[in-house]
Amino acid sequence: MPQYTPPLRDFQFLLHELLDAQSQLSEIPRHAEVNRELIDQVLEEGGKFCADILFPLNREGDEEGCRYAGDGVVTTPKGFKEAWEQFKQAGWPTLTCDPDLGGQGLPFAIGIPFQEMLNSANQAWAMYPGLTHGAYDCLREHGTPEQKALYLPKLVSGEWTGTMCLTEAHCGTDLGMLRSRAEPQPDGSYLITGTKIFISSGEHDMAENIIHLVLARLPDAPQGTKGISLFIVPKFIAHADGSLGERNGIRCARIEEKMGIHGNSTCVIDLDGARGWMVSGPNRGLQAMFVMMNAARIGVGMQTLGLMEVAYQNSLAYAKERTQSRALTGPKQPDKPADPIIVHPDVRRMLLTQKAYTEGSRAFALWLALQADRADGHPDEDVRKDANDMLTLLTPVVKAFITDNGFATTNLAMQVFGGHGYIREWGMEQYVRDARINMIYEGTNAIQSLDLLGRKVLQDNGAKLRKFGDLVKDLIEAEGHRDEMAEFINPLADLAGKVEKLTMEIGMKAMRNPDEAGAAAVDYLRIIGHFVLSYFWARTAVVALARAATGDPFYQAKLATARFYFAKLQPETAMLIRSARAGSAPLMDMAVELF
Amino acid sequence: MPQYTPPLRDFQFLLHELLDAQSQLSEIPRHAEVNRELIDQVLEEGGKFCADILFPLNREGDEEGCRYAGDGVVTTPKGFKEAWEQFKQAGWPTLTCDPDLGGQGLPFAIGIPFQEMLNSANQAWAMYPGLTHGAYDCLREHGTPEQKALYLPKLVSGEWTGTMCLTEAHCGTDLGMLRSRAEPQPDGSYLITGTKIFISSGEHDMAENIIHLVLARLPDAPQGTKGISLFIVPKFIAHADGSLGERNGIRCARIEEKMGIHGNSTCVIDLDGARGWMVSGPNRGLQAMFVMMNAARIGVGMQTLGLMEVAYQNSLAYAKERTQSRALTGPKQPDKPADPIIVHPDVRRMLLTQKAYTEGSRAFALWLALQADRADGHPDEDVRKDANDMLTLLTPVVKAFITDNGFATTNLAMQVFGGHGYIREWGMEQYVRDARINMIYEGTNAIQSLDLLGRKVLQDNGAKLRKFGDLVKDLIEAEGHRDEMAEFINPLADLAGKVEKLTMEIGMKAMRNPDEAGAAAVDYLRIIGHFVLSYFWARTAVVALARAATGDPFYQAKLATARFYFAKLQPETAMLIRSARAGSAPLMDMAVELF
Repeated sequence: MPQYTPPLRDFQFLLHELLDAQSQLSEIPRHAEVNRELIDQVLEEGGKFCADILFPLNREGDEEGCRYAGDGVVTTPKGFKEAWEQFKQAGWPTLTCDPDLGGQGLPFAIGIPFQEMLNSANQAWAMYPGLTHGAYDCLREHGTPEQKALYLPKLVSGEWTGTMCLTEAHCGTDLGMLRSRAEPQPDGSYLITGTKIFISSGEHDMAENIIHLVLARLPDAPQGTKGISLFIVPKFIAHADGSLGERNGIRCARIEEKMGIHGNSTCVIDLDGARGWMVSGPNRGLQAMFVMMNAARIGVGMQTLGLMEVAYQNSLAYAKERTQSRALTGPKQPDKPADPIIVHPDVRRMLLTQKAYTEGSRAFALWLALQADRADGHPDEDVRKDANDMLTLLTPVVKAFITDNGFATTNLAMQVFGGHGYIREWGMEQYVRDARINMIYEGTNAIQSLDLLGRKVLQDNGAKLRKFGDLVKDLIEAEGHRDEMAEFINPLADLAGKVEKLTMEIGMKAMRNPDEAGAAAVDYLRIIGHFVLSYFWARTAVVALARAATGDPFYQAKLATARFYFAKLQPETAMLIRSARAGSAPLMDMAVELF
Repeated sequence: MPQYTPPLRDFQFLLHELLDAQSQLSEIPRHAEVNRELIDQVLEEGGKFCADILFPLNREGDEEGCRYAGDGVVTTPKGFKEAWEQFKQAGWPTLTCDPDLGGQGLPFAIGIPFQEMLNSANQAWAMYPGLTHGAYDCLREHGTPEQKALYLPKLVSGEWTGTMCLTEAHCGTDLGMLRSRAEPQPDGSYLITGTKIFISSGEHDMAENIIHLVLARLPDAPQGTKGISLFIVPKFIAHADGSLGERNGIRCARIEEKMGIHGNSTCVIDLDGARGWMVSGPNRGLQAMFVMMNAARIGVGMQTLGLMEVAYQNSLAYAKERTQSRALTGPKQPDKPADPIIVHPDVRRMLLTQKAYTEGSRAFALWLALQADRADGHPDEDVRKDANDMLTLLTPVVKAFITDNGFATTNLAMQVFGGHGYIREWGMEQYVRDARINMIYEGTNAIQSLDLLGRKVLQDNGAKLRKFGDLVKDLIEAEGHRDEMAEFINPLADLAGKVEKLTMEIGMKAMRNPDEAGAAAVDYLRIIGHFVLSYFWARTAVVALARAATGDPFYQAKLATARFYFAKLQPETAMLIRSARAGSAPLMDMAVELF
């Protein structure tokens, strides 16, 4: 059976030594009192909950899965409901929520690593609070005061859970085609009819009510994405005092059989004149939903980061324990019949690839969490704007780069186990199956790449990208003169120059032919991903070199991992740049009939 | 539900137009009468069997899986047994077997594409005849005349099936550690005791008897791989006339729950004084088993090729049918609410990546099948030697390069389906789960890479590799002067030079430090894989250019796919060479405790 230990030391290193979270947060009035001790303490407690309560439910939850009991009723795997009760009792749903609504008001810099641990422990389970928090975000920003008062405290406390109901059978990526209809009623409510699919956490037995956020069209709505409105459709209609009234006409018709995340219910949801209340204005539903979507995209990155960490831990333990064959350079344990497989260079490649992507992505994610805190609460408008630009630019990168890498690294973790990796009881293949959805939902990774290149980079002529590039330049300027930093700074600087040139080149080509952007986008996102990771591995090297004299092996490991990253992973950019520059012709020249 | 159409046109193109199979086979006395019509007819009939009988059992077979009924009894999914009966009746198991033993004596050039189709239709099912054929190969080469007379006709006819029993819980890659014991008996038989795991097709209800080939140690055997012997251990002991006698002491203790190939029974096999008969000499078991293993490794490549083809077909159909959003260059179906997703550059990238790897690998595999036919039956010893060298050199490449690519391409096929790809009823995620085992069994892909670089390339100072290189040079010489071939020949020639240099460099470094080979091996195998595919795509371009004037779109598609391969896939070699040259330090410098 797999094991999990929360990576508290790495959180501490990243938050305190690399990113200096405490002083960053001290600039934000509402987080001024958040100090190192508080951060460590919350993460330690959170880690215990994840490792002790959620993690033991993960394998069985996968085997048992959610069950459709008929008549709209879905049961979650054994223990899920009880864990939810403990989660609520301990106040975990309230962690980063508004104190005025019953939340603890802690920063994303705590919320994001907690999300990682939830997902290391149990992605399927963690999706229930994840979507609930998304509904909270959306209503908090776009709800009326009455809606906020009625729904938010219950979502914060975890008494009720949330969903996002977007997809229909004929439209996922292209929401402009959606057909669900909302008929206005004299009392200001709407009656909504339609069928939604792929609704995660759409029905379950863990909470007394489920607040669905549903996209639908008004009778007079314009065609396409400009005619979509957003509605609150509760499972049970709530009275003003929060008590439950009648059962609404929204029902789970069935749940899907899937490749993974079996413990989360993926529902077909029928709305048959279900009563709903509009959020935000008519035809402004997609914009409102995007609040939820952007948070969800970062959340999906954290889902994968969680899986990467736990898969790495287990493959590392196996590589140290499993003895098989001898080292190529001669026996390392001559008294035993074989050496542990970690002596083999390729096993180390598989481990270090996981380690470099996991820890690099975690640095990136925690830095972005601090940007989110600044964007949300910094008193200086310029700081808020800059932080928000970073968040806007890099959200698709967190989502796609981490989930692509995470699918690759969970596969490496499984491969370390040889034949045992393919057997369910060892738990490794579940991580692969669970990780696979993350490349698809909340916008496929190709959609993320179009969002990055088209909307986030080319639309403002690279202004946001240059802001990130300025951080890179500052680092190069500060550290470029030191010999011991050359192995880290040189490839970063080289890539920075190439990113600048490539962006200009694609921008020019895309002006003549938009397919040029479409053809380069996926490669481009991976290049930016490496650009970001190169920056954080170089920054990590700065800190690790400064601490090397302490003799603490933690810093030596960071240095060795940084070296591995630049020697073995970052060279992928050579291929990616060549492929991105190949242009659209190799893709578009072939007529459809020739495929 | 997925669909499958046997790729007969591509088989015909490759066998007749690209490889001129008929004239190649005409040099081999036993295949002198095999002509184009016969090849096409057998593959057409074989394709019908696969598409009509096996393919419809694939999805349900995955859902139902094999079941352990207790007391050693395993039931296969509904329809598997009946399909086996039809397979036998139609004589398909006899296809490439020796006519003296009831076989049809047809060449591998027919057997290999038939294998591909079996696996497109149903990999889990195809493993039963696959392992049976492996047992046939092994006994035909190493069995005594009595053993051959007793077992081979029944294996050829499909009345009995076969297995290979190698792995034990504590040893897979390192068979030198195996512990199963064989006690010699006065009658010349052995009593074998031990437990084997991961035995594919190890128990089932499809045939009346199962012939296990079991590795075990004699009481006085030397330690390690030099002390392993091979034994025939039938489920039912056979009388000399082939009738069944008593039940032998070999039993299935349980079957594994796995990620995929649920329709194939992966068994834990207990031997409790089971009666066996030695094959080949004492302590020579591993060499004898390697006959089976080498055929099995090519077979695993064909398993994946089959999955690649069927996954591609389905993702292509979906990409043409599914309408969602508009082309970046403006509506292509202005009268409909959206365009088919094949208008998007990245969807085309996902399709063309599949197409280029699938068709390129098929060219490689069919060429290798012809090498196998030459190695097996050509009258000229030098020709046999050359062909055998190609087979020896490239078996690990067929196994690892195709299965790595196939896992990637089945994932792309699934990705084309968006959210539907993750849902079981669409069938795409099964291809991913089934394909995943192929990177692991019959020697993990890392083991293949060590076999290639260490045993096949460096051990003879690159002699076999140069033989393949000579074929490449011949092509470059013949076609390098033609302008229209430059886009294909130049990158091939460039890579040929780099392969030569890199091989020398690694060879030199490995002499000083064997870990240098271990560190470079996985990258090296992929580089050789691209070298091989570059050669076959360039040869394909020659034929397609010559036929372009016919106006047949088939040749235009081949040209476009070759262009895509060289523009978008072959550039991976730039990264691989850089990574291979990075050496062992980035992998080995980190102390075990630092991980």
